[in-house]
Amino acid sequence: MIVDEAGRAAWAYLARVAEPPSAPVIDLVEALGVLDAAHAIRKRSVPSGHDAALLATESRADVDRSRADLDDAQRIGARLVTPDDDEWPGYALLSLATADTAARGGVPLALWVRGQMRLDDLTLASVALVGSRAASSYGEHVTATLASGLCSNGFAIVSGGAFGVDGVAHRAALGSAGQTVAVMACGIDRDYPAAHTQLLREIARVGAVISEYPPGTTAAKHRFLTRNRLVAALSGATVVVEAGRRSGAANTAAWARKLGRPLGAVPGPVTSATSVGCHRMIADQQAALVYDVDGVIALVRPEGNGDAPGGRGRPTDGLSDEQKRVHDAIPGRGAVTLAEIAVSSGLDLPAVRSALAALDVAGLVAADGGGWCLA
Amino acid sequence: MIVDEAGRAAWAYLARVAEPPSAPVIDLVEALGVLDAAHAIRKRSVPSGHDAALLATESRADVDRSRADLDDAQRIGARLVTPDDDEWPGYALLSLATADTAARGGVPLALWVRGQMRLDDLTLASVALVGSRAASSYGEHVTATLASGLCSNGFAIVSGGAFGVDGVAHRAALGSAGQTVAVMACGIDRDYPAAHTQLLREIARVGAVISEYPPGTTAAKHRFLTRNRLVAALSGATVVVEAGRRSGAANTAAWARKLGRPLGAVPGPVTSATSVGCHRMIADQQAALVYDVDGVIALVRPEGNGDAPGGRGRPTDGLSDEQKRVHDAIPGRGAVTLAEIAVSSGLDLPAVRSALAALDVAGLVAADGGGWCLA
Repeated sequence: MIVDEAGRAAWAYLARVAEPPSAPVIDLVEALGVLDAAHAIRKRSVPSGHDAALLATESRADVDRSRADLDDAQRIGARLVTPDDDEWPGYALLSLATADTAARGGVPLALWVRGQMRLDDLTLASVALVGSRAASSYGEHVTATLASGLCSNGFAIVSGGAFGVDGVAHRAALGSAGQTVAVMACGIDRDYPAAHTQLLREIARVGAVISEYPPGTTAAKHRFLTRNRLVAALSGATVVVEAGRRSGAANTAAWARKLGRPLGAVPGPVTSATSVGCHRMIADQQAALVYDVDGVIALVRPEGNGDAPGGRGRPTDGLSDEQKRVHDAIPGRGAVTLAEIAVSSGLDLPAVRSALAALDVAGLVAADGGGWCLA
Repeated sequence: MIVDEAGRAAWAYLARVAEPPSAPVIDLVEALGVLDAAHAIRKRSVPSGHDAALLATESRADVDRSRADLDDAQRIGARLVTPDDDEWPGYALLSLATADTAARGGVPLALWVRGQMRLDDLTLASVALVGSRAASSYGEHVTATLASGLCSNGFAIVSGGAFGVDGVAHRAALGSAGQTVAVMACGIDRDYPAAHTQLLREIARVGAVISEYPPGTTAAKHRFLTRNRLVAALSGATVVVEAGRRSGAANTAAWARKLGRPLGAVPGPVTSATSVGCHRMIADQQAALVYDVDGVIALVRPEGNGDAPGGRGRPTDGLSDEQKRVHDAIPGRGAVTLAEIAVSSGLDLPAVRSALAALDVAGLVAADGGGWCLA
């Protein structure tokens, strides 16, 4: 789908007026379309049932920085990727819609992306390597070995751009001519940490630096936790390389589990404080023990599926039962009406509508005239 | 039960005439009693159905070294412990009778024990710490930490008396005034390895050096594998501290699993060759990851059962369903007949006989006049 300038400006406006992720704003876009949704927020007048969108945008609705944000992004080689864009990684992000999403969960409204690569390509076969900022030299060594091995096998490395495990993972990917994605807890124009300015530039050159926060947004504690869900969602598997007793990596790990994504952890000396978190996850059977590249690949492709690039299985894997039934009820060619889907799927109309909305967000179906077709 | 001199000599004779473990010889003892069984083997004349006992003893039956073996043992402070002795750890060894025992499995006929402690006391709350002979300094450190911590919690340390993890485990137990048991693949009078002569003496002083092989027997490869099953059987849990790709510890670990005993493995650096075996066991979910003393204790007492010394749960835990039914059918006081047990348990006579034989070996029931009572 081609997104016109007005449409993209509307997405950019909405991406700033509520702190992401904002389910009420997404609901409003689904109900009205992005242009009318932006208009409604600006005018402080929404259809009944959408008051939550007003509440969520109360403090920022008056400031429209959409033009400036898009310009700022363009200046550093970045763009706003929306669910209306072909490269939107809907199959990966869908899990956020179907998971039991707590306070900081939910699908992102749109993603700011710095770099030239298509986001769907980058995240088709990808593994998140995460871990302690205060990595040990052992942790750094293992991270580098896994990252370069995974890149050699065609996987992109997703991480958070931080010191320690994150930074080593990105660097090792770059060093082995692989692809890597840094998911930021601040705007894609804020080089955080500052010492990673050059690293983030390199990541953008061969992969992507992405964020759901508008340009200029500063990193804040709650944003790291919110960001972690995207690291997990955009990766076929998450591997915790080193984690202390209270590592932020445990939060990313919890997201991987919540999203139904494979989770691995690398063991280390039981005498090392930076492996305590990994050992606990393995001992509690929350994470599988992985000790080499093959083990990580086996996590992502459990059936030893050799169909490279592979990575995340079928796009419909994360669907709920009802969503699968609705998806199956739409033929491979041509469009069908809501009523026809209800008959084929055996679901009532509200259930079909709800499933279609989720499938639409995921980029799996598209409205076509008065009906629906597979996207 | 008191075992008289003739009885013990008969056990000693039988313990040498067949390579242990010898199910046919045990069957013969169960059928005839130990005196008549020894007599039958010597005379090469057994009841029909017991020809296998003749075959198993063909090459050694003519040599009766029972007196010399018992004398040799006594000279070094050792004795022969038989299923007729009160200290026979039948509850632990029973698992060998009920497990699907391959070529080298089976209950031992009797055990040579060097040391003053009662064998049943020593093995009531015990953990096997096993691992690579070529342990790393990391492995040695972890072994010592676990062994002394377990001893402080009242557990005896069972191991194989070898170099590496075994030796460190025994030494750490001695160093923390704990109890420890070395299960040998040779006679209890052969200090193997020779460099452990002093260590084995110390083990015997506070714990026990035990073997099912008669005095003078030399260590041989197949005896190590046979011995490993006793290490696992005599321990409430087995923990592999360090193991390379092809460690003998994997065999002990396999026995623990076969016997239904908890199995733990300690992780280490994924860069260490001596942790590869541990990581595989954990990754394949054959072993639980353990990283500290509390984790090992939780293995042995999964319900957080605080009833120290505890360790192996109830003596009847390893019983088959039929054995449990027969055990339950015998009242707490007084004896009942075979027929009465059959009625109470709802099993037919052959099934009751078979279960009683196993319970008898385990020291859980005893023949009493014409009937059976709880031991």
